[in-house]
Order: sequence, then structure tokens, then C-alpha cells
Amino acid sequence: MSHVNPYRTGLDRNPANHVALSPLSFLARAAEVYPQRTAVIHGGRRLTWAQTYQRCRRLASALAGLGIGSGDTVAVMAPNVPAMFEAHYGVPMTGAVLNTLNTRLDAETIAFMLTHGEARVLITDREYSATIANALRQVERKLLVIDIDDPLAAGGELLGEAEYENFIAGGDPEFDWKLPEDEWDAIALSYTSGTTGNPKGVVTHHRGAYLNAISNIVTWAMPHFPVYLWTLPMFHCNGWCFPWTLAALAGTSVCLRRVEAAPIFDLIRRHKVTHFCGAPVVHNMLINAPAQLRAGIEHVVSAMVAGASPPQSIIEGMERMGVDLTHVYGLTEVYGPASVCAKHPE
Amino acid sequence: MSHVNPYRTGLDRNPANHVALSPLSFLARAAEVYPQRTAVIHGGRRLTWAQTYQRCRRLASALAGLGIGSGDTVAVMAPNVPAMFEAHYGVPMTGAVLNTLNTRLDAETIAFMLTHGEARVLITDREYSATIANALRQVERKLLVIDIDDPLAAGGELLGEAEYENFIAGGDPEFDWKLPEDEWDAIALSYTSGTTGNPKGVVTHHRGAYLNAISNIVTWAMPHFPVYLWTLPMFHCNGWCFPWTLAALAGTSVCLRRVEAAPIFDLIRRHKVTHFCGAPVVHNMLINAPAQLRAGIEHVVSAMVAGASPPQSIIEGMERMGVDLTHVYGLTEVYGPASVCAKHPE
Repeated sequence: MSHVNPYRTGLDRNPANHVALSPLSFLARAAEVYPQRTAVIHGGRRLTWAQTYQRCRRLASALAGLGIGSGDTVAVMAPNVPAMFEAHYGVPMTGAVLNTLNTRLDAETIAFMLTHGEARVLITDREYSATIANALRQVERKLLVIDIDDPLAAGGELLGEAEYENFIAGGDPEFDWKLPEDEWDAIALSYTSGTTGNPKGVVTHHRGAYLNAISNIVTWAMPHFPVYLWTLPMFHCNGWCFPWTLAALAGTSVCLRRVEAAPIFDLIRRHKVTHFCGAPVVHNMLINAPAQLRAGIEHVVSAMVAGASPPQSIIEGMERMGVDLTHVYGLTEVYGPASVCAKHPE
Repeated sequence: MSHVNPYRTGLDRNPANHVALSPLSFLARAAEVYPQRTAVIHGGRRLTWAQTYQRCRRLASALAGLGIGSGDTVAVMAPNVPAMFEAHYGVPMTGAVLNTLNTRLDAETIAFMLTHGEARVLITDREYSATIANALRQVERKLLVIDIDDPLAAGGELLGEAEYENFIAGGDPEFDWKLPEDEWDAIALSYTSGTTGNPKGVVTHHRGAYLNAISNIVTWAMPHFPVYLWTLPMFHCNGWCFPWTLAALAGTSVCLRRVEAAPIFDLIRRHKVTHFCGAPVVHNMLINAPAQLRAGIEHVVSAMVAGASPPQSIIEGMERMGVDLTHVYGLTEVYGPASVCAKHPE
């Protein structure tokens, strides 16, 4: 019985005529609306959203200068440092795919990923130079290697053709990047842990990254300007999309190289951290830490724990510490935390 | 220099193979996760999310029983009552398009919209029966008319073939509705005010309604379970997508037939309203209301005001009342509030 309403046929369904959903748009907005707010803290270093946007555009420009673009893969082997955060924007700004590598893996597995993912560029923190040097000997293709020479790194050597800060200094801070033409374009390549054979690649797209970054806000009822401590590795499902969430809220990323109780409590106290995520092991470590490490933390911190249902000891332990805990579960294949244990006020 | 990464070609870009973005999914989730929370309050009546979902499915089922489906238009002439809220779900659940009518318009304009929008069904509140009876005489086609016989309505007559409560009682509370096959399918048809000639139809789609409903949460930093007072007409750009936002947050809609200061303050006090929206004239009315009407309201209320930049008197007046004001600007063509005056903490 249906007839066709004339309006319905008029809706333009051609993706090429629409703005793609992409989390890259969050960065441009944060830099425009909140240029002077702090985007990244790493040790004594602070970067505003204006500076972060410029640095990401420099990175994209420098990569584009090497011919990196749509269809290419850029791998990163790094802890939660500013370069890792910036790679989440600078790499896809070129149209390329970001392949974050698990820093706990051995050289053979890393070599498999670099080969399988066809990375053309590898950005790598000096602390992992032994593993990476070994892995690169096992990769037949020649990769361009860029070292992150972080003053807070513990040892290691510079291996590559360029150092990250010098590399991006050569890029254009006004680089004219584009949103993807199609929101289904790939943004990231992550490998699952390979418990059942070789690691398997998971490709995520701009649309999914946008929606999951926003979903973090809705699910966790995140306010504007959260102060987020990076206890969760960004190499793990792109840090559950939180690098992008933080730009959407113009929040602050507090970097963390090592997941240890003393620096975590210190940073929570010093920067008034409001949110952090982690596996149950992280929460257990904090619960079992000496009480004096927690002294002076008066504000409420919201924590997200992923994995199987956390034991009562974690839930109660975090509550005693004044932490508001949210439990999620997810998979790399679904951008991280796909389901939440919805709390009822009662 | 780019080569094609084998993963990129594997991404499935066929919309038919993806779940469409649609705000209808929020309702199913609210009913499943928070079935006993209050969805709608109208006078002394309370409906849970489980009940609301059932009522929306009954409405969809009853409409489908009339042959209403994809390509059809269902018009509604009603103030902010439960039936109006339910129409935002029940109508698009059938695949049809919801055409909300501005209750302040005259019979001639309403007749134009009913003709132009090709409405097959009109759901109409008895309070507007004089205008509607007049309008229907000017429409050449025969529409099926369903009356909303609200006990809180002031007068009017029943005009139609069925009364809303009886009509939905005949529908199936387990109706097997479907998300749209294509997220670009139309969800609503709204008419602009026609200051430059005949009113112009604006068709919005499921994807846009989903994204704008979520954007309300992010922009306003809305918590879970807000209590939202319906000072903004749902006929106006679908209440800026808030009928859908409220399901996404399992919040409570407090209905309001008449925008007057006494009932507004009474409902804010009685139901601990947390959020409301409105044009500057609404805010002015509240600011200028007798102070005793506001007595006993101790909690912070967040208000959104739309339109040109509000005068200092409104900003200061609302602040003196303890209201946290957010200023937005938008158009029917962009689902309501498309831009926000972003507040900086400093």
C-alpha cells in the first residue's frame, strides 16, 4: 500500500557528498575552540591543543613528504608518550593506517607484524631498540625507521634514519590534510595476541573509531576537560579509542611510560587526574600498594576496568580508595570496550 | 608511491551489511537495561522504559496494520504529551516518516503541510480540534485521524476514527520492528516557518538523528538518567533530537502541555528536573516570574537556550536563579542546535 513520498527519493545517499565520520575532526575542533588548554603532559613537558595539532600536522606533512599516503602502513613501537598520541592523528591524516605494536612482544613476532602489515615506516622508542634491531634483521623489506629519543626512556640506542623531533620539525605545521573520502577507510591495524597461531590483523575504520570514541563519553558520562592518566597502553586497541575521545572533550592526556604504583599515585595527585583505564592487574597493583603512596589524593577518580567480571576484592578495594569503578568488556575486533556493566543507582 | 595494503580492500563498505545508525536502537537498549526506570511523567502518570517500549511497539504495530510503512508519512499535532514522545519511536519503527506539526499554526498552513507532506495518518490532540477540523476540510485526500484524548487537555472535541489509547491497545507489544536498511532513510519531515513563502519541508534521516541525539550528550556533558522537562516543543525540530537523547541516557521526560512559569517551577521542584531547553522568551518568563514560585528549588538545573546570542540579562538572571546556562544556535535543516557557545572554565 506504500507510495513514495517525494522527499524520500531526494535524500542524497552518496558518501562522496557527505562529510565522513572521522575522529580526526575532533582534533581540529579542540585546537580551534580550546587552543590554550593542555592536551598532553609528559614529565615536565606540557603541550596545548594548538601545539598538539601543529605537531600532528607536522608529522603528517613529514610522512607525506616520504610518499606515505592512502594504502600505506606506519607502525609505532612506543609506550604512552606524546609521539604515540600524535601518531593517532598524524598517521591517518595522511590517509595511511596506524599499526601500533605491543611493546611486550619478542623480535620474531614484531618481525611477523612488520612484514605482514607491510609497514613502510616504523616509529620506535629507543627503549625497545634491542628488540627492534633484532626484528628488523628478520624483515626482508627496507623500512624507514624514526627513533623517539625520549629523555625519560631507560637506555636503548638510536637505530634509524631520523629522530622524531627533528623529523616532525621538517614538516609543515599548516599541512593541508583531508578527512577520508570514505568513512569506511581504514584508520588502524592492530594484531591480536596470536594465542591460536600467528597474530591476526584487525583493521578498524574512521567511522568506527569516531563512534567508539564518542561512545566512551556517553557510557562513562565523561565531562568536558577530563584529566586522563595513560595507564592503558595506546598500543592496545588504540587505547580503546581514548586518544580520540580526549580530543572530543578537549581533555588532558597524562603520559606514563611505566605502569607502577608510585608514579601513578604521584601523577593522580599532582595533575588531579579524573579518569584512567586498565586491566584488573593494574587495579590490583594499586589496591595492594602501600597506603602512604595514596596520601593527599582527596578527589574522586573514575576508573574503567576491562576483562572478565572483576572479583569482589577489586570492586571493594577500589571503592575504599574512593575510586568510582566501571566494568567493561571488549575485543580488539570491536575497538576495545564494546559492552559495559551498566550500573543502576539503586 | 602508494601501494594497496591487502587489509584495506577487505573492508566491507556495503551499507546493507552493516547495522544502521538509528536512534531507535536507544529505546530497545533502555528497555532492556533499565526496564524499571521512569521514562515518562505526565501529570500523575508514570511510564517505565519497559512500558514505553511496549507502547511504541503497539503504536508501530497498529500503524503497520493500517498499511503504514516505508515511504508513508504520519503527522502529529500535539503538545509535549506521552503520545508525542512515543510517536518519535513508533512511527519510524514502521519505516514511515514522522511529520510533527507546529500547534501554533492556522488551519490553512496545517492543510498545506498535510497535503504537501502526503500524510496518510494524523494523530491529533483534542485541544487543537477546531484548527484541525478546519484544516481537514481543506485537504482533498482522506486521512485517517486518531485523537489523543488527554485528560489534561483544555476542551476540544474528538474528530477521528479512533482514540490513541484504544488504537495502540490493539497493537502488538512484541511487534517485530526493524532498524532501517539504510541509515540515510528518512525519519522525520519538519516544515520551516514559511516566512519567505509556503513552508518548506526538511527531511532528516536516521543517521543524522542518531548523531545529533548523541551530540546533545557530549555537548551538554549530560549524565546518565537526566530528568528533562519538556519546555521545548517536540514539534520544533523533533525537540532538537532530545526524545532520542533521553532514551540513550535512560533519562526521564517530564511532559508539559503549557509553557507557564508556575507549572514549570512546580515540576522542577517536584521531579528534581536536571535539564531543560527553550527559546530566550521561555528563560525571560522564568526570570521575571514571582520569586515565591521558585521557593524550595535547591538543586542545580542546566538550561540550554537557543537563538541569537542571549542578552546579558538572561545570562545573569538565570545565573542568579542557580541555573547553568548553555547557549546554542541551529536550524531545522541541521536537526536543531548545530553550534554551541563553548564555555571555557576560566
